[in-house]
Amino acid sequence: MKVFGAAAAHAGIQYETVEYDIGGDRYLATGEVLPDSVLEELRGFDAIYLGAIGHPDVKPGILEKGILLKVRFELDLYINLRPVKLYPGVPTPLKDKGPEEIDFIIVRENTEGLYAGIGGFLKRGTRDEVAIQEMINTYKGVERCVRYAYELTQKRNKENTLTLCDKANVLTYAHDLWRRVFDEVGEDYPDIKKEYAFVDATTMWMVKNPEWFDVVVTCNMFGDIITDLGAMIQGGMGVAASGNLNPESVAMFEPIHGSAPRYTGKNQINPIAAIGAAGMMLDHLGHEDAAAKVETSISDLLASGKIKDLGAGRMGYTTEEVGDLIAEGL
Amino acid sequence: MKVFGAAAAHAGIQYETVEYDIGGDRYLATGEVLPDSVLEELRGFDAIYLGAIGHPDVKPGILEKGILLKVRFELDLYINLRPVKLYPGVPTPLKDKGPEEIDFIIVRENTEGLYAGIGGFLKRGTRDEVAIQEMINTYKGVERCVRYAYELTQKRNKENTLTLCDKANVLTYAHDLWRRVFDEVGEDYPDIKKEYAFVDATTMWMVKNPEWFDVVVTCNMFGDIITDLGAMIQGGMGVAASGNLNPESVAMFEPIHGSAPRYTGKNQINPIAAIGAAGMMLDHLGHEDAAAKVETSISDLLASGKIKDLGAGRMGYTTEEVGDLIAEGL
Ligand SMILES: CC(C)[C@H](C(=O)O)[C@@H](O)C(=O)O
Ligand SMILES: CC(C)[C@H](C(=O)O)[C@@H](O)C(=O)O
Repeated sequence: MKVFGAAAAHAGIQYETVEYDIGGDRYLATGEVLPDSVLEELRGFDAIYLGAIGHPDVKPGILEKGILLKVRFELDLYINLRPVKLYPGVPTPLKDKGPEEIDFIIVRENTEGLYAGIGGFLKRGTRDEVAIQEMINTYKGVERCVRYAYELTQKRNKENTLTLCDKANVLTYAHDLWRRVFDEVGEDYPDIKKEYAFVDATTMWMVKNPEWFDVVVTCNMFGDIITDLGAMIQGGMGVAASGNLNPESVAMFEPIHGSAPRYTGKNQINPIAAIGAAGMMLDHLGHEDAAAKVETSISDLLASGKIKDLGAGRMGYTTEEVGDLIAEGL
Repeated sequence: MKVFGAAAAHAGIQYETVEYDIGGDRYLATGEVLPDSVLEELRGFDAIYLGAIGHPDVKPGILEKGILLKVRFELDLYINLRPVKLYPGVPTPLKDKGPEEIDFIIVRENTEGLYAGIGGFLKRGTRDEVAIQEMINTYKGVERCVRYAYELTQKRNKENTLTLCDKANVLTYAHDLWRRVFDEVGEDYPDIKKEYAFVDATTMWMVKNPEWFDVVVTCNMFGDIITDLGAMIQGGMGVAASGNLNPESVAMFEPIHGSAPRYTGKNQINPIAAIGAAGMMLDHLGHEDAAAKVETSISDLLASGKIKDLGAGRMGYTTEEVGDLIAEGL
């Protein structure tokens, strides 16, 4: 928020913020995860900035489902946008790949598919048990996501290539719909090159030839997987930012990482992914120039080599100092 | 088959083979993919050795579904076994990782999950279309796969660690069953260390810390994805072998790669993955020593640096010569 504020001040952007105390501590104290009243208020904002969730004393799943997935679904944030961009100076685990090669964006559908939470058990707990989980997609849900991806590809204007990552050769219902919609919407974008990559092959190419990708569009489950792989090749959780968008209403921005509870209060964790998410938020709010300045400041700091290591406690600076450096860099 | 034959001769193993002409050419000539009569005959063998499928004139999906997936499902080959092993001398795309770090096995469930082929469309082709694909698991199907993985972990005796790769925090039906079965069967293996990794995190660790894995067990869809990523970190399609097993009856072995139709008849493609699959076949047939010799011969050849590049046409040897070298190395 310090960097966001500095960027807004430079650009003369007025804004108001409201803070909500949501997360593990509140849940442990009150039993509440995300009260309905808060959810209703969130609908009224232009943007939501999510810190990071996860608490060692809370059973896994409760906060993820009760906060992150709930906001995504209830506010219909149907795009999960995840740039995979290697900043100069950041080490990638891949050989012979640098910022030139690792620079693409993944558009993940964010409100359907295996994440619908639909399914059930037959004869649960017996040796005859059957468990079913539905991968469910609608024309409308796929169409708006795919169209967003085409628009983004056009706007980005890099290789002008949109890759559909699916498994249509096996998922002959859900991903047959994806293929048909991808081709149909594609007719409105004759200048964009269309590519198809099965999800298994996608993971191979991300490691071997990440330069092949410009924009990738994919379903919720595969997006979850390939964006984590993407975060790793761009240098890991210290730098990976993301946005959950409803282009027609509110959007939520977050670093991809969790809350790193081992470091609570130590002023040692790396804030760059969170700052990157604040930059994406500025962009989404229509302040492309301010957003670009945040990106440049992050990029310059990383390129300078001042930050020794992206890991918590190993940066050579405190969390606060890294924020100061990026704010000054603006 | 040349290497298989040589290994069998050294070990005094008697065997008979029957060849079937199955694949794209037959399909194009006769319209037949895998005749029922052949499928019935296949049930009677001890092992099946599959070359590689794919034909440029056949629509994608037909051969994969009509041959590969059909044999897996009809013959109930419920384990897909994929070693991720970097041979010495083989370049991996990962920095600072060598044969010490990249050496684990993925056990993929092979007859259930999203591959069941169950699903459907509502209002297909309209703006109200809904497409559904079922991820379906049974207790029996998960139990036998998980038990196989525990047994393998015990037998392998490396780190004695079995990792369940799932997405139980989101797939609260299908993967709740996986978790419960994993824990329940695990009680029979008190000495094996149990780890849990969400599939998204698994892809990150495979790239960042592949040395963390010993044996990984996972569902059909996630197994498809992470084994391709695994093939890439072990040096790519030139070296990745796999087996489709029913430990109680027949098994089918195959390189992970396709048929590389651009190289048909040129004597240029890399046979090492296929030879590795033949080695796995010997192991499955109970000839561990002969299998180990094939592995050693492959490993020695690769370590020698004679093979310049694993890519077709770039090996510095013909396909046949590489086969000869490995056969001689036995
Ligand atoms: C925390 C989890 C539910 C979430 C997801 O699966 O979407 C996370 O992995 C992510 O990608 O944002
Ligand atoms: C060819 C395809 C149907 C198959 C699969 O998805 O299982 C392949 O990718 C594999 O992993 O063996």
